[in-house]
Amino acid sequence: MIAKAKWLSKINWDDNQLVPVIAQEVGSNDVLMFAWMNREALARTIETGQAVYWSRSRKKLWHKGEQSGHFQRVHEVRLDCDEDVVLLKVEQVGDLACHTGRHSCFFQKLEFNNAEPGWVAVDPVMKNPDEIYK
Amino acid sequence: MIAKAKWLSKINWDDNQLVPVIAQEVGSNDVLMFAWMNREALARTIETGQAVYWSRSRKKLWHKGEQSGHFQRVHEVRLDCDEDVVLLKVEQVGDLACHTGRHSCFFQKLEFNNAEPGWVAVDPVMKNPDEIYK
Repeated sequence: MIAKAKWLSKINWDDNQLVPVIAQEVGSNDVLMFAWMNREALARTIETGQAVYWSRSRKKLWHKGEQSGHFQRVHEVRLDCDEDVVLLKVEQVGDLACHTGRHSCFFQKLEFNNAEPGWVAVDPVMKNPDEIYK
Repeated sequence: MIAKAKWLSKINWDDNQLVPVIAQEVGSNDVLMFAWMNREALARTIETGQAVYWSRSRKKLWHKGEQSGHFQRVHEVRLDCDEDVVLLKVEQVGDLACHTGRHSCFFQKLEFNNAEPGWVAVDPVMKNPDEIYK
């Protein structure tokens, strides 16, 4: 049934039947993370009101927070003009989206202090990953 | 030379030698668009200070704004924890990132007013595309 839903069929799924997904925090508008969804992941996200992604490495559904407790409550779902990218507006439980214990996964900034540019971790670790995943 | 730069090699390029890129507006933090870059596109982005993407459909470099005049001035470049997604913080010239004449490409919202969810264009067209691409 899910596979036939019109709103799911409007999405231009890629060759692997996936769609890229950006998770953005409600309020701050911070970009928290980027992941992928298949039809079932997106359908479950809507049903449960929490972000469910498709883990390409583990090849299975990934209910974000299932291990860390850091679930994402979905407030809004957007689709882009080409209908091939999804934007989730979420409330990030625990304020931590990143498995490194940081607020956002995008904590490395390209800096130009030296002869060559370099990536520098500029955002603080808020919680020790050992504590998150104990 | 570009291909060998250490900061470029730190990125986990996908099987097509591309990396997904999220463009976010400085100030508002709005997510404007999503696109892809190859090494050359990212190197040119840094050199010129303006977003240069890789067009997968046209199979060539795409200097955003080359037709519309709506260039993106890059203020900051971020990389995620897995080092396979780039986040650009940009100033959007003309305030329009979308080819439909809207501020952001993510103008379709999933709404639940009817029996079945549906995508609804909720953001206004700021400028007629015929005027942008004349």
